[in-house]
Parts: sequence; structure tokens; C-alpha cells
Amino acid sequence: MQRPVFKGDIEYFPNVERIPFEGPGSDNPLAFKAYNPNQMVGEQTMEAHLRFAVCYWHTFHGTGADPFGPGTRDYVWNRHADSMDAARARLDAAFEFFTKLGVPYYCFHDRDLAPAGASVSESEHNLQVLTDLAKERQQMTGIKLLWGTANMFSDPRYMNGAATNPDLLVVSHAAAQVKAALEATVALGGENYVFWGGREGYACLNNTDTRRELEHFARFLTMARDYGRSIGFKGVFLIEPKPMEPMFHQYDFDAQTVIGFLRHHDLDRDFKLNIEANHATLAGHTFAHELQMCADAGMLGSIDANRGNAQNGWDTDQFPTDMNDCIAAMQVVLAQGGLGRGGLNFDAKLRRESTDLEDLFIAHIGAMDAFARALVLAHKLNHDSTLQQLREQRYASFETAMGREFEAGRLSLADLRDHAAKMGEATPSSGKQEWVENRINDLVFGG
Amino acid sequence: MQRPVFKGDIEYFPNVERIPFEGPGSDNPLAFKAYNPNQMVGEQTMEAHLRFAVCYWHTFHGTGADPFGPGTRDYVWNRHADSMDAARARLDAAFEFFTKLGVPYYCFHDRDLAPAGASVSESEHNLQVLTDLAKERQQMTGIKLLWGTANMFSDPRYMNGAATNPDLLVVSHAAAQVKAALEATVALGGENYVFWGGREGYACLNNTDTRRELEHFARFLTMARDYGRSIGFKGVFLIEPKPMEPMFHQYDFDAQTVIGFLRHHDLDRDFKLNIEANHATLAGHTFAHELQMCADAGMLGSIDANRGNAQNGWDTDQFPTDMNDCIAAMQVVLAQGGLGRGGLNFDAKLRRESTDLEDLFIAHIGAMDAFARALVLAHKLNHDSTLQQLREQRYASFETAMGREFEAGRLSLADLRDHAAKMGEATPSSGKQEWVENRINDLVFGG
Amino acid sequence: MQRPVFKGDIEYFPNVERIPFEGPGSDNPLAFKAYNPNQMVGEQTMEAHLRFAVCYWHTFHGTGADPFGPGTRDYVWNRHADSMDAARARLDAAFEFFTKLGVPYYCFHDRDLAPAGASVSESEHNLQVLTDLAKERQQMTGIKLLWGTANMFSDPRYMNGAATNPDLLVVSHAAAQVKAALEATVALGGENYVFWGGREGYACLNNTDTRRELEHFARFLTMARDYGRSIGFKGVFLIEPKPMEPMFHQYDFDAQTVIGFLRHHDLDRDFKLNIEANHATLAGHTFAHELQMCADAGMLGSIDANRGNAQNGWDTDQFPTDMNDCIAAMQVVLAQGGLGRGGLNFDAKLRRESTDLEDLFIAHIGAMDAFARALVLAHKLNHDSTLQQLREQRYASFETAMGREFEAGRLSLADLRDHAAKMGEATPSSGKQEWVENRINDLVFGG
Amino acid sequence: MQRPVFKGDIEYFPNVERIPFEGPGSDNPLAFKAYNPNQMVGEQTMEAHLRFAVCYWHTFHGTGADPFGPGTRDYVWNRHADSMDAARARLDAAFEFFTKLGVPYYCFHDRDLAPAGASVSESEHNLQVLTDLAKERQQMTGIKLLWGTANMFSDPRYMNGAATNPDLLVVSHAAAQVKAALEATVALGGENYVFWGGREGYACLNNTDTRRELEHFARFLTMARDYGRSIGFKGVFLIEPKPMEPMFHQYDFDAQTVIGFLRHHDLDRDFKLNIEANHATLAGHTFAHELQMCADAGMLGSIDANRGNAQNGWDTDQFPTDMNDCIAAMQVVLAQGGLGRGGLNFDAKLRRESTDLEDLFIAHIGAMDAFARALVLAHKLNHDSTLQQLREQRYASFETAMGREFEAGRLSLADLRDHAAKMGEATPSSGKQEWVENRINDLVFGG
Repeated sequence: MQRPVFKGDIEYFPNVERIPFEGPGSDNPLAFKAYNPNQMVGEQTMEAHLRFAVCYWHTFHGTGADPFGPGTRDYVWNRHADSMDAARARLDAAFEFFTKLGVPYYCFHDRDLAPAGASVSESEHNLQVLTDLAKERQQMTGIKLLWGTANMFSDPRYMNGAATNPDLLVVSHAAAQVKAALEATVALGGENYVFWGGREGYACLNNTDTRRELEHFARFLTMARDYGRSIGFKGVFLIEPKPMEPMFHQYDFDAQTVIGFLRHHDLDRDFKLNIEANHATLAGHTFAHELQMCADAGMLGSIDANRGNAQNGWDTDQFPTDMNDCIAAMQVVLAQGGLGRGGLNFDAKLRRESTDLEDLFIAHIGAMDAFARALVLAHKLNHDSTLQQLREQRYASFETAMGREFEAGRLSLADLRDHAAKMGEATPSSGKQEWVENRINDLVFGG
Repeated sequence: MQRPVFKGDIEYFPNVERIPFEGPGSDNPLAFKAYNPNQMVGEQTMEAHLRFAVCYWHTFHGTGADPFGPGTRDYVWNRHADSMDAARARLDAAFEFFTKLGVPYYCFHDRDLAPAGASVSESEHNLQVLTDLAKERQQMTGIKLLWGTANMFSDPRYMNGAATNPDLLVVSHAAAQVKAALEATVALGGENYVFWGGREGYACLNNTDTRRELEHFARFLTMARDYGRSIGFKGVFLIEPKPMEPMFHQYDFDAQTVIGFLRHHDLDRDFKLNIEANHATLAGHTFAHELQMCADAGMLGSIDANRGNAQNGWDTDQFPTDMNDCIAAMQVVLAQGGLGRGGLNFDAKLRRESTDLEDLFIAHIGAMDAFARALVLAHKLNHDSTLQQLREQRYASFETAMGREFEAGRLSLADLRDHAAKMGEATPSSGKQEWVENRINDLVFGG
Repeated sequence: MQRPVFKGDIEYFPNVERIPFEGPGSDNPLAFKAYNPNQMVGEQTMEAHLRFAVCYWHTFHGTGADPFGPGTRDYVWNRHADSMDAARARLDAAFEFFTKLGVPYYCFHDRDLAPAGASVSESEHNLQVLTDLAKERQQMTGIKLLWGTANMFSDPRYMNGAATNPDLLVVSHAAAQVKAALEATVALGGENYVFWGGREGYACLNNTDTRRELEHFARFLTMARDYGRSIGFKGVFLIEPKPMEPMFHQYDFDAQTVIGFLRHHDLDRDFKLNIEANHATLAGHTFAHELQMCADAGMLGSIDANRGNAQNGWDTDQFPTDMNDCIAAMQVVLAQGGLGRGGLNFDAKLRRESTDLEDLFIAHIGAMDAFARALVLAHKLNHDSTLQQLREQRYASFETAMGREFEAGRLSLADLRDHAAKMGEATPSSGKQEWVENRINDLVFGG
Repeated sequence: MQRPVFKGDIEYFPNVERIPFEGPGSDNPLAFKAYNPNQMVGEQTMEAHLRFAVCYWHTFHGTGADPFGPGTRDYVWNRHADSMDAARARLDAAFEFFTKLGVPYYCFHDRDLAPAGASVSESEHNLQVLTDLAKERQQMTGIKLLWGTANMFSDPRYMNGAATNPDLLVVSHAAAQVKAALEATVALGGENYVFWGGREGYACLNNTDTRRELEHFARFLTMARDYGRSIGFKGVFLIEPKPMEPMFHQYDFDAQTVIGFLRHHDLDRDFKLNIEANHATLAGHTFAHELQMCADAGMLGSIDANRGNAQNGWDTDQFPTDMNDCIAAMQVVLAQGGLGRGGLNFDAKLRRESTDLEDLFIAHIGAMDAFARALVLAHKLNHDSTLQQLREQRYASFETAMGREFEAGRLSLADLRDHAAKMGEATPSSGKQEWVENRINDLVFGG
């Protein structure tokens, strides 16, 4: 059952039809070679496993500007003098794109969908207008909202932080935005609501009271949670860690930092994490590491699927095509039983040098094919008995009677000491890392 | 009141006398220019503020070996065929060094003090013998033990982890070591007990059950805590974070990771953190950041004072002479009211190319002078009214009635939204970072 | 002999007078505490040693925009509908700033001074107009041009490179800009002309012919050199290395890469290097290292004085206040006998959060004081006999007859082998690094 | 035509037979799934393309020691009290390993093959003895020497450098080693001779004369070249860049640094580069980048095939199994027409936790399979017409008459300026990076 292609008053991508699945042999840049939404992998379809979402900001607002030059792409939908006219055009372009590409979900910030107004009320009104239009288009097409969020990092008022700003009035403006964005998310049936704290952090310890700011942050999230629940939001709240950029240091540094913070402030029943690949590597971790830490804590909520370069120390937000990373990510996701209400959001932008209109489609197609292949391969790896056996055998001693006593907390340090004294030296057991790596390559590349 | 110089049967540093304080003008490499133990800074002496400790491993075992070559220093105390003879000689050399240098504290791993034996019991016996000798020398000199710990990373049995090893028998050997090291620490009046988990981590996610290993880790620490308290240990348990090396990834990645872990496992009333400068930078943080995160959580226990190079991605463990770092560290320490039972341990090693016997003294003198200067300057910065006013004024809105309501958790998201709507746009307030940096330089360099 | 304060039709900084030198005790944010232009250090004044320049781009165009948000500063001179009107206003603001601050030099890109026009000729005309105005103001004030350059990285046409663009027409536009910028530089008596190749590099090896692009680059620089000399440019051409950002990889990665390139293409008689502190650290080097490599090659031309954070992997371009770096830099500069025609250009931008108009002055004052202090301290270190002796003694064996034979290339491998066989084992000589670091701290902080 | 399996007096790997090729379906850890030496790829066999070599140091000396603990593997051939007995045993183990594994080449340092003696002459004698034995075994088996080198970094005498040591006597010892190692290399028909300058660099600029040390380095290499040629060495001299570790900074930082140095000192006709993957990443480059820079300069000589972790800032020297890197590397190698006299040397070590004897084989098998797959896939990518066309079309303007004039150096800056003025604005052309990345994944994973 396919979703219909949406076209507004103007067709923004007239040279692109609905992207077909043509399979492995195809060299058509505008066709899928691996992503076949209804293909079963295990007990679910690819579409159900992967829950792809297009992001509104990079895809429809991203013109290629960087700190050393302005944008290189002049999209038709941006050519409106009036910002609300542009917003309406952009919405039509977006739904045309979603339906031609064939993704089930999208994600937005409040300011992506509708421009800020001159006052709190006008901003709320703008967002309301666009929310109504988006709702209509969702109903016409079957496209759904994976998550909403509020942009609390671009406006100059947030330069010193939003929820952690030293000025209560700025915190109040942030609250106004979150309130409206939560309402929009509920109105559109959003499955999650995300916080990314781009300006929540510090540049200089000597002018900052980090302890107080973190307390304010917890307070703010608690209020948002309470308000969300009060208006009927049943979804998951998500925090997206990032270690730095734009700030020198951001409070939500990495998964473990955020998990510890959420637990300390009793927010861990409502909040999970949204892990971005490029943020993981900026924090000195692999993508899979961050996912695993969340999965271990029962707090892996959703994924921002992109990639960076190991050589570049900023967020390059490229489309995810590194198969090592995609496979390792899907191994963690499958091992925890899937993403639940979360999904794979392409928080990725075209390279500044990619200026053909069709490049927007090409980039998403490559990313979707990458994760489709990764899904199949991760399923194969997670079901490979030789790999699973190795892991199980390594921990076999904890399946003995004494191992169970240990895990149950019924042994003392002296008990263990006596065990060591009695048993004598342990025989080291090879970790077999090289064998593991070979086996994975054999399964991935071995046909 | 000076501690007497200790000399054993042999004088190991015959060309070095007790290191005198000669003050700023001196160019004597073997004299202090800044560290004057009885000089008051605020309401305490330098000695009481700084609580310096010499580390046993680098200082008396470190011969300069690195992954590309063996040691370059052939210390007299190591020239014994029998490892217990060497241990006794080393102990004498150590107390001679401590007392000639004039530090009040030292720190050790079990295996630094006494060699491992062929069995658990023999290892325990060896440690007991050396502990008795150390106790004697402590009493003779007034030198005290800042902390003890167990080396659970060098022995091949720990290659896959100690407390987090997949083999219960290895975990048991680790328990035997911790038990004995706790007993030695109590016997020697140690003020803290440290865990550094050099092998607690993973090299490869595909052969590791990180969730299970972390549960084991918490279990192990709980046992150690319980055993320590049962034998009368009144001091502080400390975890020392490090992100990697020797492992690909270590579980105790950084301060926030450890704080979250300790709180989650109800260990935060007994455990604090021991922050090492070089571990901070390997984790992508500044030294001061890690200290501040601990101070904010009330969990800054002690400090391993050294430094790395921003250009090198491994633990170079150099002696701390970077004044920016030392000053920023002492600002955090003074702001939290001092180190309590903790101290400044020089977990630092001579460069492999520093082969003169006197280089051991020179290196410590430079580090002590650096922190003595940093103490004086940090005290000056923390009492500078212009710097303190800037910080206070930035948060002034939280001292209003509404600010207090917010902090007390008595406002809702809607209340804040209404406040923003009523007050209108916020006026951004300059963060004044450049002024802060200038002011600090003016105070530090301005005479 | 002071330069007069310049004021145009409007006074842009009405609340700031000429910045006075008030000396160490002052807490006036708008006064120098260390930079006293006529104070002698060795045989030259501070002004003559340091040759400070203000950069036009960050200082007068920089509004605080970053990839996550727009500018935070709305300068009066930018509030003109017509871009040429804004350019004229900006020029007046700049000369007011230069003269109130008291710097002798400034630097610009063509597009900083005058906006691009709709055609090559119009762009040339715009630049001509502003060059004439700048020349007038230079004559009125005595302010001089340290260097000019062309911005060949912002315009979308340069997204795939300027001199290394795969399209000859784009290369031609780059040539047009360089031609005009060289003419402007000559007209204004500029002492140097700089190339920074922000887009000269690659993002993806699979679509790039790096060999061909590098050949084109050499060709382009040769043409520029020839043209410059043909119109009477007597100054130094400079290349400014940077390893990455905005590109994944930039061809002018670091000093050694550029030195090798210039020598290979016979450009090393006309070209030297302009070293930026933050670019050095992005390339994995210290600032002093890059300066030293240039000095060793006789190719240290000029300096972009700023700083980054070791924790952030992008160009933060902060004002230079890290005294370790400033002192080490000035040690290399003094050891090579000064900067010649080069200078210290503040390629540094206010933090986005620094929004007071006076912050522009404060930032420059702090940077100038930092280098003034560094100059004095570096002079002291370079004249310290104990430090100099250590270095000389280490190489004493090359001052022997045999050492001189070796250096003159008159010994063979077999000669050296025989020497080793005859002399037997070498006695390792301590590198004394800890002593060196202590001595430096003692001299810097010891009063 | 298979080489016979060698067995000495003892069979060191009794449980391992000659490693067979079993093809893609096999799950036998001790069989090749992809490396089939006689399989043609293009016009050559896999064996002829890949020229695999086993390294002597990690494979036969590496016991798993790291800075935090001693070795974990106790190889039979090391269990000899006499170091020459051990050397002979090790040689037999090595040739058994080479022939069972089925590699055509090996590489060694002088000290790997034979222990240092108490004098220059004794060291020479030891090496001579082992060289004779190796020669015999080479003749018996057909195994060849890819390259020899001298270990001038482990001995304490080299702590301050070898060729760049400040003491001429140490330089002379280095010369003695290189002389003997060159002789051994010639005696064994080695195809290349390598210099890796592990201690050639500095730790502290303030005690180092970098300029003088680099001049000494060039002098030393010149002598070595002259001596090598005088004794009939016809092969290639190679420099292996590494940016740091063990030194703070190493002179042979990266490919461009070394290329520039060799050209400046007229060594580029005799010397090429040996690129190591992990050294590339430590220098902030990709493996493929370093290879490409060498290939562009006509100076890619040989490869040390291993890998690091992007998260770890030291040389982990893991076996190369990252297919992205292997494919990109083979693309450069194939594009330059192969490795000539060079080869793929596995400068890689087992993880410390890999303690089974068979792990040595498993690790090499995985690496060989990885490069065999990479060879096939790189050949496919380099012959894909869509990828090649994109690259050609991007540079099409340089195939026009004017483009050729430009490349030939017959245009001036003014000519280009006039061209730009005449032609008007350039139309930016999409770099198509996303399409390139998709196409590569489609070809690699598409069956």
C-alpha cells in the first residue's frame, strides 16, 4: 500500500517521479538498489524496522551556507518576500519530497515550519497556521511526524543559553517556544519530542555558574514534561547529546552524561535519548558505543542518522553511507528489539558543492539504501551462531552457581578472595578480536 | 616544624640535601622559589592547602620504558636479584626522597610496595611485610599515606578486565588484591582508597556484554566499600576516570560518566572522584572542567596533578608546569573550600630523556612551585571583586521574587510563557569573555 | 609621536577615547597595562617589534553569526541599504578604531573593503573607489597597510576551489580578483600580499584530480607573482597554511607542506608564510612549532595572532591571551631577528556573546597587552644564560673537528661506523626538559 | 607453483597446516575466503598485485606488552636463555609461519633478526650469522625480503634521537647499525631499505636546535644512500612518516613533509615513501590521502598495512580489516600502476588479549582476505565508467585550447582576468559527492 504523491500548487521537483526500487543491478541514481519497503527482514518489513524520517531544516532550509560563505542553492520555495508565503511553499515542497522519496516520517523545529513573529503571540499564531496545513497534508498522504522540537539556539536572545540562560526572561521565551512546539507536536500526532541544547553549555568557566545552570535545566525539562503530559502528549521525550559546537562545552556532552543527569533528576521514566552519529564521534565515541550505552540503560529512543569525518572536528552532518557504522548501529538496534516509537531521522545536509536539485533525492536514496543493507547484514550478524557463541562462552562462569550468587549480591569480598586463593591462577582466555573482525567481514562481504 | 630527613642503610640521593626554600631570585635547580610550606594563603598554610603527595610507581619504579624502548634509568634500589630485597631498598629510597623533598604524603599501588607472590597468600604476606616497614618509617618521619590502591591492570590475568572480567576467577583475584590493599591502607592510616580501572572497558563491542560488565563493576565496588567499612576504613573511596588507554574504551570515561554511575548504584555517599589532568584532556575536557563537574556534584575528592600535550593522544603524565591549568584547577579547589581529605598527588613521570638522578627532585620541585604560585594567584582571582561581580550580576534575575519561584519549582511552563509574552523581547547581555580573560592576565601578570 | 585620532562624518565609538597606557596597576578595561608603544625592549620599541595590525573582516564585518545562528551585533556602519554607502561608513569606523586603539597597521580582503559588483569591471571599480578613500585616510593618520588579499572562498562560484577549481572560468574569476587586489595593495603601499586557500582542497578523492589541481595552484601563484612584480610590488607574498575547514582537506595543510610546495615550484624566493596560531593547532602542531619550521627555512613572513581551544576542532579565532603560546611565539620571532616586513595581525573575532560595542576595544587591548608581556618575557628567556648554555652544550660534539667534518659532508657512513667502534658506547645525556620548564616558569613568574 | 612448508628442528605451529583457500562459504578460521593467490585481477595475479609481507617484530617478538602491563603470550621460540639461541629458534618459527601462511615476503629490523652485542663488531657478527641462516631459508622456500631496516629507537642511547642526536657519537652508532643493516639487506636480496625515525624529533623546543638536527638528518640519509649504492643496493630507499609517538613531534610528520624534505635535499631520486595507515590517521589524514600525495609526487614506494581507531590517539597497529580504508588504498595503488618493488607489509600486532597461538594466523588471514577483496573491488571501481566520466567531465575546460595554454604556462593573470570579464559569471557545477558515495556503495555491496 503506497502513499500517494503529493503536489501543491507548484510542482517543485518536476523532473523526479516517485523513487522506484530497481534492485542491485541498477545504475539509475534516482532508484533504490537495496531499500524495498515491504521486504521482510526477520518478522518485520524494512519500512517497519527503519522508520525513516526526513528532517525539515537541512533538507528544505539548507542552502549550503557555511562560516566561510553563503548558500549555493536557490530553492524555488525560498523565493518569497513574505516569510509566511515561503513557509507555505516550503510545506508543499516538503510533502512532495516526502511522498516522492517514500519515507513515512518527518521531523521539524518550530522555526523550520513557521517563522518567528514580532511577539510571542504572533509566533504562536504562525506556528498554528502551519500546523493546520501540515495536518491536512499528513491526512492526505499518510505521512507522520516522528518528532517535533523547538529551535532555541539560533535567535540572538539565546546566545548565552536557553533553559540555562542567566536571564530568567530568556528562559521564559524558551518556555514559550517549547509550549507552542509541544502543542504543535501533539496536534500532529508526533511520536516523540526532542531537546537539543545547542546553546546550553558554557564558553568560559569564570563567568558561569555551571551548577546553577544545570539545576535550571532540570527544572525546565521537568516543566516541559509536566506540560506535555497535561495536554495529552503520550510520546517519548528525547535529549540529543552533543559535546560542543556551537558552544565550547555543551552540558549534554554524551550519552552517559545525559543518562546520569536524567536519572539524577527523576526524568528517566519520561525521557530517552536521541543519538546522532556525528555527535558521537565529536565526543570521542563510536556511533555504536553511544547507542549501546543507551540500550544498556533502556534509554535508546531514536537516532539521527548521519556521519562525520574522523579528520574534521566539527559537525559535518553528511548523509550516512559508511557501512561499518550503519551495520554496527543496526546491530544494537536489532539486539534491543527495534526502535519502538523512534526512527532513523536523516539529520544530514547536502555538501555545499552539491547544487543540482536532484542531489537532494540522491543523498536520501544513498542513505536509505545504506541502512537497508545494514539492516539485512546486522540481522545476519546477530543471528550468526559462531559470533553469539563466542560471547556467551566468555561469560559462562557467571552461569555457574557461584557466578549467580555473585550477580545476586550474595558474596562478599572475602568470599571472592577465598575462591581465588583456593582455585589458584586464572588461565587467560583469548578475546579473539581478530577472529570476530574476520567473521564479520566474511559474513558482510562473503556473498 | 620540619619532618626529619630519613636515611636507610644506604643513602640513595647523596648529592641532594633537604630542598630549601630560596625564593623568587634563586637559580638553584634544587631549591624552591615559590613553595614555602608555612606561608599563609588566606587562612591556611601552603602545605595545608596543597597536601602534596609523591607517587610510588612513576617515581621509584619508572625507568623510562615506553612502547618503543626499554628504560633509560638504572636506579640503585632496583639492582637486587630478589624482588623483596628490591622492595625494601625502594622503600628506604622513597622515604629518603619524601623527606628530602619535603612532601607530607605519598600514594601507592599494592604492587609498587611489594611484589606479587606465587599465590594469593604469598602476595598478601609480601604486602604485609612491606606495610609494617612503611608504618615504621611513617612513624619515624611523620610522612602520611594519602591513598592506597591495587594494581589490577598489569598482570596478564587482567587483560580482559579485573572487576569486569568475563571470568569470575579473575574477578576473584581482583577481590583478593583489593581486600589486601584495603587492609594495608587502613594499617597505614590512608586517608583515601582509589580505584583506577585501566582494564575495565572494552576493545570490541561484538565480544562484550557491556551491560553485564557494568553491573559486575557496581557489585564489586559495593563489596569493596562494605569490606572497607567493616575493617574500620573511615576515609573516602575514589574513582579515577580515564577515557581510554590501555583499552579502546574505558567505562570510567570522565567525571560525568562516573558521577552518574555512582549515583545510579547508590555509591555516591562513600565514593568521590580523583581527577587527573591528563585524563581530563584525553576525554576532550579541560582539567578545570572535570574538577568543576565534580565540585558541582559535591564529589571532588582528590587530584592527580600532571599534564599532557594537546598534540599527543596518549597519557604523557608530565609534571604539571602549565600555569593556566594549575591556576584554573586551584580556583575550583579554593571555591569548594579545599580538598578535604584529598590532596595533590604527582602522578607524573620523568621524560625518558631525563636521566640524571637529580632530575627526580627537579621535576617535583617545579611541580610544587607551579602549584604554590597557582594557589596564590587563584586566591587572588577568587577574591577579585570585579570578576565576582560580573558573575553575580549575570544571574541577578534569579534573585528576584519570580526567579526564586522558578528555582523553587513553583512555576509552570505556561507561567514562564506568560511572563515572556508580557515582558517582550529580552535584551542580550554581553558575556564579557574577553574582559574576563584580560582581567585574569592582568591579575596574574600585572605584578 | 602619536598618530592623530581619525573621525569621519559620524563618530562610531563616541564613548571611547584614545586608549591610554596606564600600566600594571590599572583596572580600567579601556587602558593598556603592558603595551607601551615607545618602551624599549632590547634595541627596539615595542611598536617596532610587534607591528600590530587590526583585521578588517572580523573586526568590522563580524557580527557574531555562526552555523547555528545569525549575528548578535548590529553595528551602525552596517545599517545602509546601499553596499557602497556601507563600505564608506565602515572605512571611517575602521580608521577611527585604528587610531583610537593605537595600532600602526591593518589588513583586508578585497571584499572587506568594497562589495563585489555585478561584473568584473564593476567589482574592480568598487575596489578602486574604496582604495582611493583608504589612501586618503592612511595619509591623514599614518596608519599603514600590513597586507592585502582577495577573498576567494565566500562567493558560491568558488565552492569547488578558486585557483584549483576544475572550471577554468572560475580560475579566471579568481585571477581577476587577485589582479585587482594586488593593484589595491600596491596603491596602498601594502608590505605583503597574502593567499589563504580556504576552498583550495578536496572533499572527496573520488571526484578530484589532486595532482592536476596542485599543478594549477602553482601555475596560478606564479602568474600572481609575475603580475605583482610587473606592477611594482616589492613586498613579500605570503601563503597562510590551514589544514581543513571549510574543506575536508586543504592543500596548504601546514608549514612543512607549504614550504615543500613553494620550493618545488621555485616560488620560495618570493613567498614566505603567514602563520596563524589556530591553524597550527588544527593541524596537530603547536603555534611555536609552525613558527619554528618557517624560521628554520628562512620563510617566516608574518603572523595571524589568535588562539583556539584544544577541545574544539574548528577555527574559533579567539583573541590571543594564552601567555604560554604568546611567549613561545615571541621567542621564535626574536631568535630570527624579528618579523621584517611582517607583523602581528589579530585575525580574531569577538565571541558571539560579546555584544557591547566597547568589547571590540577590550578584546584588542587584551591581545596587545598579552603580546607586549610576551615580548618582554621572551626577550628575558632568550637572554637567559643558563637556558642558552644548556642548548649549546648539547650540540658541543658538533663543534669538534670531527663534528665539523660531519656537518661539511666530508665523512662517510663507514667513517662514522669506525668512530663508533673505536669509541664504544655513548653515555646518554639528560635532556633536562623538566629543568628547562622550571627555569622558564621561574623567569616568567619569579618576579 | 606453491612454496614448500618450512619446518626447523621444532615445529612451532603443529596444529596449523598450510592455510588453504576455501572461498566465500567457509567458516574455517584457518582458511582464506577471498585471497586466492593465483586468481587474476586485471592482468596480474592477486599475489603479484598485493606482494604481502609479514613483519618480524610484531609477529615474532610481540608478546602483548603495553605501557600498563607486560606480555601475555609466552612463545616457545623466546624461551632460550641465550639470545642467539632464541634468534635462531625465532628464525625457524618465522619461516614455518611464512610458508604455512603463504606470503611471499617478510621485513625486519636488524635487532629483530639478531640481538645487539656488547660492541659494534659483536653486533655486526650476530647479524651476519643470522643473515646467513636467513639466506639459506630463503633459498629453501622461495620467500623473499621486501625490506630491511635498522632499529634506531629502542636502545637507550637513541633516547634523544639517532641520526638527529645532539651527540655525534650516538649518530655514529646509528651509522654503524645502518651500515650493517644495509649489508644484510643486500645479502638477502632485499627490494627496499626503510628508515622510520621513531626518535628523530623533539620533546621540547627550548632544548633543541631543530634546524641543525634536520640538516644532520639529510646528511645522514645521503651517507646511507651513498653507502648502499656503493655496495650494490639497487632497490628503493624508503622513509616512513609518523607524526608523533614516541616523541612529542617527529620530523617525518606526514607524506608532504617528507616529500618536501627529500626534494629539498636532492634525495628524491633514490628515496620514496612507505606509508602506514595508522600513521596517516595520527597525522590527521586518511590512509588514502597519504597514498595519493605520494602517488602524485611519483613517490609511493610501499605500504605498512594496518589500522588504528579514530578514537585512540596512539598507534594501535591493528590488523587491517576496515574495508573502506583497504578499498580506497587499493584504488590509489591500482591507479598508479601497482606498487613496483614495494608491497603490503602487515605492520600489525595482535591485540594483547589475543592469546591463542592460532590467533597469529587468524589475524594475518583476515588482513589478507581484506586486501584481496579490496583489490577486486578497487579494480571494479577504477573501471566503472560512470565514476571515471564524472571526474573527467569536471576538468573538461582544461582540455580546451585555452585550458591547455593555461596548463602550459602561457597565460598571464591579466589574460585570465580578461577571460572572466568577457565570459561573465561561471555556473557552479555540482560536485556530486553524494552520488559518488552512493555509486561506490552500490558497486561494493550491490552484488
